[in-house]
Amino acid sequence: MVLTHQELPTIPAEARKLFREEIWTQHTTNICVGYTNANLVIVPQEMAFDFLLFCQRNPKPCPALEVLEAGNPIVQQLAAGADIRSDIPRYRVFRHGELVDEPTDITDYWRDDLVTFLFGCSGTFEGALEQAGIPPRWRQDGRAPGVYITTIPCVPAGRLHGPMVVSMRPIPSAHIPRAVQVTSRFPNHHGSPIHIGDPAALGIKDVTQPDWGGPVELLPDETPVFWACGVTPQTVVLESKPDLMITHYPAHMFISDIPSEHQAML
Amino acid sequence: MVLTHQELPTIPAEARKLFREEIWTQHTTNICVGYTNANLVIVPQEMAFDFLLFCQRNPKPCPALEVLEAGNPIVQQLAAGADIRSDIPRYRVFRHGELVDEPTDITDYWRDDLVTFLFGCSGTFEGALEQAGIPPRWRQDGRAPGVYITTIPCVPAGRLHGPMVVSMRPIPSAHIPRAVQVTSRFPNHHGSPIHIGDPAALGIKDVTQPDWGGPVELLPDETPVFWACGVTPQTVVLESKPDLMITHYPAHMFISDIPSEHQAML
Repeated sequence: MVLTHQELPTIPAEARKLFREEIWTQHTTNICVGYTNANLVIVPQEMAFDFLLFCQRNPKPCPALEVLEAGNPIVQQLAAGADIRSDIPRYRVFRHGELVDEPTDITDYWRDDLVTFLFGCSGTFEGALEQAGIPPRWRQDGRAPGVYITTIPCVPAGRLHGPMVVSMRPIPSAHIPRAVQVTSRFPNHHGSPIHIGDPAALGIKDVTQPDWGGPVELLPDETPVFWACGVTPQTVVLESKPDLMITHYPAHMFISDIPSEHQAML
Repeated sequence: MVLTHQELPTIPAEARKLFREEIWTQHTTNICVGYTNANLVIVPQEMAFDFLLFCQRNPKPCPALEVLEAGNPIVQQLAAGADIRSDIPRYRVFRHGELVDEPTDITDYWRDDLVTFLFGCSGTFEGALEQAGIPPRWRQDGRAPGVYITTIPCVPAGRLHGPMVVSMRPIPSAHIPRAVQVTSRFPNHHGSPIHIGDPAALGIKDVTQPDWGGPVELLPDETPVFWACGVTPQTVVLESKPDLMITHYPAHMFISDIPSEHQAML
């Protein structure tokens, strides 16, 4: 069943029902705009302390929104009763660091030692940027911001270490102060930019060629503005090759019941 | 050796040297004003994941500033190289939930399985409140804000659960909006108030009689304003009676090298 744009749900519980029933298995970019989105990482319990410590030490790239206790797949705070095993349109499953499956349901992979982490997502502040009058050129034509691996090291924790991953939005220079103000209101969704301007300062050799996402064009009056990215925790965990790790499929986010503005600081 | 007020150090490294050499073993209220202060809780590793998860779920009362890995007593970020076993003027040691010692050095208690947590402290925003023109009546005559156990439950995590502890400052009603603005800038130091007004809403029967701190007087034009308090994590851990827990002695804080304003959000 393919829904038209007009038939997409605007209420998160209705959207999650479509995902759970596998009626909708595509990306979530235009679904329930204005609600808090979250990245997903699921790891075995033996890695959970190191990973939570990594999040505590690296709150810009890894803002933990909700952590479920070992073996519990039911979300408590972001969307009470949602089942993390079925309520996302598509997942990625890694064994020993290798991608082995991209299923629409992970119930068959579930184990009693799995710990679920949900992280803030810059998708949560996209609506606020737009309402502030900043033209969202990076979202035109169904695109998403370019994502880059930097040479900036995260603060290590136990066995976990790795570089920060960032997203880039090309912003007209006169709009940059407003973009800093607006995103500072969302500290649990990466918050203010980590860098404005020269990509080489982050070790990015060619800003037109992101590591994820399509090619990016910068217009003459635009400056590249970089935010810490929720791909960071996935990348860091993957490098340590746990026997099992499950994430959401890129751009197929967990949609919570929390309006984005409820997550804003001021 | 007793130092006069004029001889108190203004540089954190110099203060910590006096604490380490046991030249100063009293409270830290007037030492290095304007630098980030931190609460201390040390627990065995077997409790560390539950406790870090408790902090993640209760960021207002339990804002984890820095967590050291098991067995490491050397601070990395807040004051590189400081030894948490000696660089605080006085400690409290609990075994199985009972207070057993109040030493000025905990080197003899150290174990390779101990995990150190340093938490934000409202002492960090006291200077900002004063600079904003809010009269710090609660700090006059060597006093400190009253501290109360509430009936508001924290979000449980594993074996850990318990009520939120709050501090109260009597504030002239016209100054309350400014007090909200100023403290909102310090989300890692309890941030904005959790309640303004009627103490009964928090289960506080007599606001003049705090659970810790001296009696409190409210003047006719003052409203009681309540902030989440760093005593919460100590209380919650103590209720679970770990075989060993070490904290700072009340008001004898860890003084970091980080200026308070570096911890402010905006």
